[in-house]
Amino acid sequence: MENVEVDFAVVGAGFAGLTAAWRLTNVDSPPRMIVLEARPDRVGGRVWTDTLDDGTWLDKGGTWFGPGQEYSYKLAEEMGACTYPTYTDGDSILVLEDGTIVRYAEDFPLDHLFPALGGLAVMEEFAAMAKKLPLDAPWEGTHAAEWDKQTFAAWVDSQLDDSSFALARMALKTIMMGVFCIDTAELSLLDALYLIRSHHGFTRLMSVKGGDQQDRIIGGAQSIANTIASKLGDRIRLGTPVRTIKHDDDSVTVIADNLTVRAKRVIVAIPPTLAGHIQYEPLLPAGRVQLLQRTPVGSVLKVVTVYDEAWWRDDDLTGQSFALADPVGATFDGCTDTGTPGVLISFVFGPNARAFGRLTKEERQQRIVDSLVKRFGSDAADVRLYEEVEWADQQWTQGGMFAHFPTGVLTNYGSLIQEPVGRIHWAGTETSSAFHGSINGAIESGERAAKEVVDAES
Amino acid sequence: MENVEVDFAVVGAGFAGLTAAWRLTNVDSPPRMIVLEARPDRVGGRVWTDTLDDGTWLDKGGTWFGPGQEYSYKLAEEMGACTYPTYTDGDSILVLEDGTIVRYAEDFPLDHLFPALGGLAVMEEFAAMAKKLPLDAPWEGTHAAEWDKQTFAAWVDSQLDDSSFALARMALKTIMMGVFCIDTAELSLLDALYLIRSHHGFTRLMSVKGGDQQDRIIGGAQSIANTIASKLGDRIRLGTPVRTIKHDDDSVTVIADNLTVRAKRVIVAIPPTLAGHIQYEPLLPAGRVQLLQRTPVGSVLKVVTVYDEAWWRDDDLTGQSFALADPVGATFDGCTDTGTPGVLISFVFGPNARAFGRLTKEERQQRIVDSLVKRFGSDAADVRLYEEVEWADQQWTQGGMFAHFPTGVLTNYGSLIQEPVGRIHWAGTETSSAFHGSINGAIESGERAAKEVVDAES
Repeated sequence: MENVEVDFAVVGAGFAGLTAAWRLTNVDSPPRMIVLEARPDRVGGRVWTDTLDDGTWLDKGGTWFGPGQEYSYKLAEEMGACTYPTYTDGDSILVLEDGTIVRYAEDFPLDHLFPALGGLAVMEEFAAMAKKLPLDAPWEGTHAAEWDKQTFAAWVDSQLDDSSFALARMALKTIMMGVFCIDTAELSLLDALYLIRSHHGFTRLMSVKGGDQQDRIIGGAQSIANTIASKLGDRIRLGTPVRTIKHDDDSVTVIADNLTVRAKRVIVAIPPTLAGHIQYEPLLPAGRVQLLQRTPVGSVLKVVTVYDEAWWRDDDLTGQSFALADPVGATFDGCTDTGTPGVLISFVFGPNARAFGRLTKEERQQRIVDSLVKRFGSDAADVRLYEEVEWADQQWTQGGMFAHFPTGVLTNYGSLIQEPVGRIHWAGTETSSAFHGSINGAIESGERAAKEVVDAES
Repeated sequence: MENVEVDFAVVGAGFAGLTAAWRLTNVDSPPRMIVLEARPDRVGGRVWTDTLDDGTWLDKGGTWFGPGQEYSYKLAEEMGACTYPTYTDGDSILVLEDGTIVRYAEDFPLDHLFPALGGLAVMEEFAAMAKKLPLDAPWEGTHAAEWDKQTFAAWVDSQLDDSSFALARMALKTIMMGVFCIDTAELSLLDALYLIRSHHGFTRLMSVKGGDQQDRIIGGAQSIANTIASKLGDRIRLGTPVRTIKHDDDSVTVIADNLTVRAKRVIVAIPPTLAGHIQYEPLLPAGRVQLLQRTPVGSVLKVVTVYDEAWWRDDDLTGQSFALADPVGATFDGCTDTGTPGVLISFVFGPNARAFGRLTKEERQQRIVDSLVKRFGSDAADVRLYEEVEWADQQWTQGGMFAHFPTGVLTNYGSLIQEPVGRIHWAGTETSSAFHGSINGAIESGERAAKEVVDAES
């Protein structure tokens, strides 16, 4: 068992932990610092890029940056990473419940999904409600208790309680199922509103151009994490899952497999459900224990299919699609900045992902290619490479894309989300309101936590 | 590191694990078996009895048996344990929101809490809905999806949407907050109905005589667990928290601190949130991982105050009380069968327990004694001994009294609750529909799991 003594320990080398470590280190007379990462082979956490022999990068996890995500762009620039726009020339495709294919030219097919005025009115009501929330403490909003005791599914059904709104109902639930990767019967209305608030509205959240899916990173999103890691050097320890954190008034002791670290403070920068798996001595306060029991994650299968060419571009298609009933809930053009080879990104969300989990990989590939062919034509069948990740099957993530707060959790426990427990500090996109759930949120949380520990010791 | 090879391993020596172990052992040619218990000093899990020097037993966890709980009574008889009735001679006390004290003679003060017909009608509607649920698969009920997308709090508010029902609304939410130890904004209506169904109705659940709080165990409830443990002898290993379970087609390897057990099958008989803290290799299927992320537990402070005499009995009081707004949500006579010394059991539930957790022990004692004095008179101040347990602070329980299923969880994951994962089987009261959440449920689940592993190997 190796013993190390440092000023600050960071648990987790995702974007939150790496940012915290980098902010702590990139100063005159940096403190002694160490980052403990459970994965044996890489940093990046929920951001994971594979690179093919020809140099093509495939983003298998977090992928995009969008307008307003200043923490993301700033860090990218600092690390010398360049962005390029997701391809948007042409029409996108909407697949209706009965399989009908609709081509649309807008950023998001609002008019197709909410053709009746009532449906659009509900969207506007939802946006207006979201705007009322205090961004940094949504649980303190005037209507927080009222909204946190309802599920998103129940609210949609109550607002659109007429058969003429069947399409709008289905659209709203399907969209939010995709965003949170869960059945919306699991989703608190307050949590849904908080997300929309934090992403500056529904259209921004869902759009490519002008929205959250606007930009990609040359080399893939993980390349930024890799650059930070190379700057941190041997201060990052891979393959070092933390099992126990002992803490008292004077210090913390972070015990990982084969390594024990004594530090003044620790930043826990992993998904909250995994933070709950660590044994704390003494036990965390009841409120914190219970918060960590109440931050489940959804299921999402992300599939990357590689083709010789981006054939959809020849058909004046963006590669973007959105489906109401088909298990392939959404697709995006996933090419590098050169546009060759063709790369399509497909998502299977929530209950559909769990159902796909019971199939073989071959069956999944067949089902996904079938869906793509129906949507885009027979070119979609000429797959050169099929790659998939079910994030719920990743040991050191255990779900995707980010945790949600079930009903009653934000109002009962929300004020504890960022609150340190003695010398233990918390980071991760779940603790951030700066595009909550995004890479940007992770980065912001890392900066905030780094500042916390420095301030506490100065 | 000690290595042991057995036929069956059991994780957890609560009533579920002990029952499973006893059923496996109490046969001709018993299989080789071991029980791994994390606590260093006792068996019993959420059932925990302290015994004073004068022999008085104080039940600090699960306490009662009631009519219909056949698994409990059968096991008690088998272990030579005798029951005695909780004291019920006299009136009980209801404390209204404004502090008004109401004496009542009924098993439960239904007429006082639901004076308006509409309130009673909602109780009847609730009972009728519960009866419709298939007991062993509530997620398959005709209205399951409809009920699982609503919280109990929202349902109550929608049914009693008139200021004349303020008392009934508050009563229903307060009662269910006590039962689940959470804000009812966290509670799925389907889960609430399932509990009522599983306990044969609301009145049975809440009552002493004829209900779930009817009987106590001579020597305290843990004495039954202790008797099983003495029969199992060195097959029980205390202070052996399980960290990792490796599993393949041929066997399981259960790795605890300082002990590795190879077995044909393992029964995991601990609260689901703790089962989620174990590292499984390979990782459990996504559905099971996600179910274990979705079984949070509430907060409950259980307080035992000991007096020279059971003075309330002289005032023709049962010692039972129920309060709408006071943090001491409920009290019960907690005496031994002799009635001397006087023992009162007090409960602080859910959000109130979390608020109490931020006070010192002395402040909590003062607040609780103040409440008891208001309710029962000045005799309540002459406390000889004050004992308290916040179950959320117990490392190897991390909440009380039993897990709930947030909205959408029973309908999305319910069918997985009992489903083995290869050679890993699941027990615990959360897996049982035989008085779900009770000691009886734990025992039933242990019997079921023991049968499962024997059947699978024969």
